[in-house]
Amino acid sequence: MENFAELYADLEVVNQIGKTTDGWNRLAFTPEERAAVDYFLNCSREIGLKTRVDALGNAYARWEGENPNSPVVLCGSHLDTVINGGPLDGVLGVFAALEAVRIFKKSGKLPFYPIEIVAFACEESSRFGVATIGSKVIAGLIDKEKLSQLKDRDGVSFEQAIQRWGYTYGNLSELVRTDLRAYLEMHIEQGPTLEVTGDELGIVTAIAAPTRFKIVVKGVAAHSGATAMSYRRDALAGAAEFILTAEKWGKKEEPAGTVVTVGVCDVLPGSMNVVPGEVRLQLDIRSIDSDSKKRVVHALQAALKEICQARKLEVESTSLGDDEPVFMSEELNKLIQEICAKESIKYREMPSGAGHDAMNLKMICPAALIFVPSQDGISHNPKEYTSPQDISAGVRVLYQALVQLTQKELQAET
Amino acid sequence: MENFAELYADLEVVNQIGKTTDGWNRLAFTPEERAAVDYFLNCSREIGLKTRVDALGNAYARWEGENPNSPVVLCGSHLDTVINGGPLDGVLGVFAALEAVRIFKKSGKLPFYPIEIVAFACEESSRFGVATIGSKVIAGLIDKEKLSQLKDRDGVSFEQAIQRWGYTYGNLSELVRTDLRAYLEMHIEQGPTLEVTGDELGIVTAIAAPTRFKIVVKGVAAHSGATAMSYRRDALAGAAEFILTAEKWGKKEEPAGTVVTVGVCDVLPGSMNVVPGEVRLQLDIRSIDSDSKKRVVHALQAALKEICQARKLEVESTSLGDDEPVFMSEELNKLIQEICAKESIKYREMPSGAGHDAMNLKMICPAALIFVPSQDGISHNPKEYTSPQDISAGVRVLYQALVQLTQKELQAET
Repeated sequence: MENFAELYADLEVVNQIGKTTDGWNRLAFTPEERAAVDYFLNCSREIGLKTRVDALGNAYARWEGENPNSPVVLCGSHLDTVINGGPLDGVLGVFAALEAVRIFKKSGKLPFYPIEIVAFACEESSRFGVATIGSKVIAGLIDKEKLSQLKDRDGVSFEQAIQRWGYTYGNLSELVRTDLRAYLEMHIEQGPTLEVTGDELGIVTAIAAPTRFKIVVKGVAAHSGATAMSYRRDALAGAAEFILTAEKWGKKEEPAGTVVTVGVCDVLPGSMNVVPGEVRLQLDIRSIDSDSKKRVVHALQAALKEICQARKLEVESTSLGDDEPVFMSEELNKLIQEICAKESIKYREMPSGAGHDAMNLKMICPAALIFVPSQDGISHNPKEYTSPQDISAGVRVLYQALVQLTQKELQAET
Repeated sequence: MENFAELYADLEVVNQIGKTTDGWNRLAFTPEERAAVDYFLNCSREIGLKTRVDALGNAYARWEGENPNSPVVLCGSHLDTVINGGPLDGVLGVFAALEAVRIFKKSGKLPFYPIEIVAFACEESSRFGVATIGSKVIAGLIDKEKLSQLKDRDGVSFEQAIQRWGYTYGNLSELVRTDLRAYLEMHIEQGPTLEVTGDELGIVTAIAAPTRFKIVVKGVAAHSGATAMSYRRDALAGAAEFILTAEKWGKKEEPAGTVVTVGVCDVLPGSMNVVPGEVRLQLDIRSIDSDSKKRVVHALQAALKEICQARKLEVESTSLGDDEPVFMSEELNKLIQEICAKESIKYREMPSGAGHDAMNLKMICPAALIFVPSQDGISHNPKEYTSPQDISAGVRVLYQALVQLTQKELQAET
């Protein structure tokens, strides 16, 4: 097959945009992100695709195929990054899709169904605090009121941010796509599973949408020298007990694929000579097994209450979201397994702990998500790396899947 | 005796300086702190004291007495505050000393030895990271090189900060005082002990200088959704285990008066969807029992190593200081006990977990430190409060001690 030289050349060029010494910075609707979108659209036009950007900034490149009015096979990912992100998260999925279409074109065949490549707008939550906004909109999963409340750290509203690029949306329901036959996305794993198991490709069975809490533990700030241990109401010691309990429950529920993380622990006043008076935690629980997630939430709420009562601490726990896991298309996954078998690609079925645009697309059409390995499980970091061999496996699968999903004869089956 | 109306009037006026809605802000060598110093000097001149400010900003008010060339009885505290501090820490000790001298003057008696009231410069570490600088200098406990390295958060050096007020120091050894007969300081307790025991006054036996460490725990930052529990190297979970071990050892050594605090816990990157990759702790261990402190340091270093090995975390531990406890003058304490007995003041002997100027003065003369109760043990906080009755007890003790320490006949005894 190919050596995918054009794919690597594309990644090389697009990753000159937003590159800094600390990593890649192409936050949603910044000049850097829009420059990457323009590059993607230019590359697409070069191979004869028709391009358009919708009223929300989602960018599409279309190959009409034999039946322009028939349902579309959509394939892509996103081009925005987190702050100081890496060179693969999102961007690999968009340009791998473009590469797959390029190979398709070179093969001389014509798809029966139209193919579109997509770069979704605002996939990362880094700018507006909400992830996968572009795909949420085309799946009808977010309303205008919610969008109108979003602001970035500088106080720029979502609406102002997109207006800068000439986008304005009227009725959001007009943006919902009802013409999709299937959605395919290739993404880096962002975890170490494939590297550890030695598989080249992951076929995602389900995406574990998170259940999240903000927890405020309040004790009494006191002089670290002048306050005897038994007079203390140390918010950090209480928080530490909770952090370990959260970890214990994550481990206990590991067989169910559950993960439990305390990623934020802000201490007030945060001074060496003051017993901590207040600690603000953020807790993230994910699983594709809703029952497991419920067991963890229940156990941790009870533990938190117990710890704080025993230590005479006050506690406030606020839900930051409680989403249900999304199961990917079994039919598409079966097709991808058959392709892997034919191509001799070592794969495994696996859950995704991270959210992706594919979970929204699943609500409006059959959707599949494939993972290529992340070296050392690293992502959202300039050190993101996937070997050319692993990238190759992913592109070959995308290409074969596009071919099969756009064949006329498959229509009856799916 | 008196109702100390002038003391309360002084506190009322001086605490209009640097007062904000979040607390008092009179950081060292700010216009607010120097205005408080000026107010103190003005009040002192009003009752006929001679005032001077040394080359480092320590402010003195002197009553010559019968023998201007004999050793001086020094009494005072400081006028600078922490950020958002309270209305009593430091300032009470300075104006209580002034009140005691005022009562002495009204009594018509003349001290045999000179009395000086002092407002030490830069007692709080809030601006330059080092505490009790003014008293360290007059006790010969800090060198010029160390002073020249100090900078505040805005990059202003200690030297620049004091030059703004016209102070410059040449040879620091010229500032060391060799003419002191005794030092007396009254301060709020900053802890809850006196309130809990129901005593009106604490006589400090020893000051527990801290042993401090900066500890950096390094794991691997990873996606909270995509990284299974068993693949994690979570720096915060490791830090939590250490925080609880530190607390456990503090409780174990409580009979020795030891306290152990983790007051700083900074998490990197500190994002809800990232397993913590690094945690920076600051550990503060204090005791007047050096052996107890050594047991704690030894146990915690071993525990830290063990925790991090078991969790495959890296760890760096850096000493931030290791001072020995300072024992106050037994003779002066005996004198104060006798005064309390005579005045029917309920007192207790107790250690001080907090550092004070008195610990430096101890190096150059007999020094005593008395505590008045802190309501709810609160300090470094706008809610600092000591009842008028408790303040009264403190001032009466200061006055009687000044009278006795400046009597001619006592010279042979001390």
